[in-house]
Amino acid sequence: MKKSFGPKTLIFPTPVWVVGTYDSGGRPNIMTIAWGGICCSQPPCVAVSLRKATYSFGNIVERKAFTINVPSEEQVKAADYVGMVSGKNQDKFSAGGLTPIRAEFVDAPYVKEFPMVLECRLFQTIEIGLHTQFIGEVVDVKVEETALDEKGMPQIEKIRPIVFSPEIRAYHAIGKYIGQAFSIGKESA
Amino acid sequence: MKKSFGPKTLIFPTPVWVVGTYDSGGRPNIMTIAWGGICCSQPPCVAVSLRKATYSFGNIVERKAFTINVPSEEQVKAADYVGMVSGKNQDKFSAGGLTPIRAEFVDAPYVKEFPMVLECRLFQTIEIGLHTQFIGEVVDVKVEETALDEKGMPQIEKIRPIVFSPEIRAYHAIGKYIGQAFSIGKESA
Repeated sequence: MKKSFGPKTLIFPTPVWVVGTYDSGGRPNIMTIAWGGICCSQPPCVAVSLRKATYSFGNIVERKAFTINVPSEEQVKAADYVGMVSGKNQDKFSAGGLTPIRAEFVDAPYVKEFPMVLECRLFQTIEIGLHTQFIGEVVDVKVEETALDEKGMPQIEKIRPIVFSPEIRAYHAIGKYIGQAFSIGKESA
Repeated sequence: MKKSFGPKTLIFPTPVWVVGTYDSGGRPNIMTIAWGGICCSQPPCVAVSLRKATYSFGNIVERKAFTINVPSEEQVKAADYVGMVSGKNQDKFSAGGLTPIRAEFVDAPYVKEFPMVLECRLFQTIEIGLHTQFIGEVVDVKVEETALDEKGMPQIEKIRPIVFSPEIRAYHAIGKYIGQAFSIGKESA
């Protein structure tokens, strides 16, 4: 038997990503988001949704670029902190103990300490409601070399991204490996 | 030191969700997706991206509705299976051992056996590239009563959603609790 919760932004899992931008003066800013996901394979695009009230919103509109940084579970305190305060009057990089690095291909900074980063060029801007969705074309993906497997591919067990649960507002780690996609399902055919 | 991977749909974590639709003849269909995420708080919206070549694509365009079903880790084989085959010539519900239930508020079926489902009304359709993004307004969230905590809220440890890693194509379970959002970051201030 299922219980109804009404119209809510309640679904699992959602990501914990940190969006990096420059403001009009070139000052780097970051904010944590959970409203986002991959949205196209060709061109490769990832969407992030922000409220107009955020400082990062104006930065993306002006610079037409952002980075998406994936914090590791041991960086959860910094990731949570930069999601709670505004960058209007504060340098959130230094407050979170983080270092801004100018992205290689787009006009935005990324977080040096986080294990994975996507450099994104603003591709489409979609007005939805309280949130505006920025669709970023992925220009480059960068991953810390210590987080790669023996074949040189990123390993989720080494990156250890954080999972957010809306409504209950909990952070969880990634758990055990349960199978290979486009493969394990053949056993049920 | 970070290694570049170029323009790729490579970011962690992404969800494993199963989209439910009816075709023009009223036949229920499901397909597994990982390109999706919450995209607006008000109205509450979740986005899913599909290729035009999929059978579900035409169903959403015609019915203007879909469900998003969250499989549990022990249902990973069925979830993977319905992502590998097309619904054009096959009843994927019965092939996956799953039962279609008519949604309460929208013109789409949901999966009885999965612990969490969102009933969505088509709100916006965004042409991006190979994928089209369907933004669904969440009309109702339903969660299995056995997956609720003592306060009656959905518990991620009981729902046990699956995490997908693009490129390496691995499925992982949810791991340990690592903190409360909008709270644990105060310790770093």
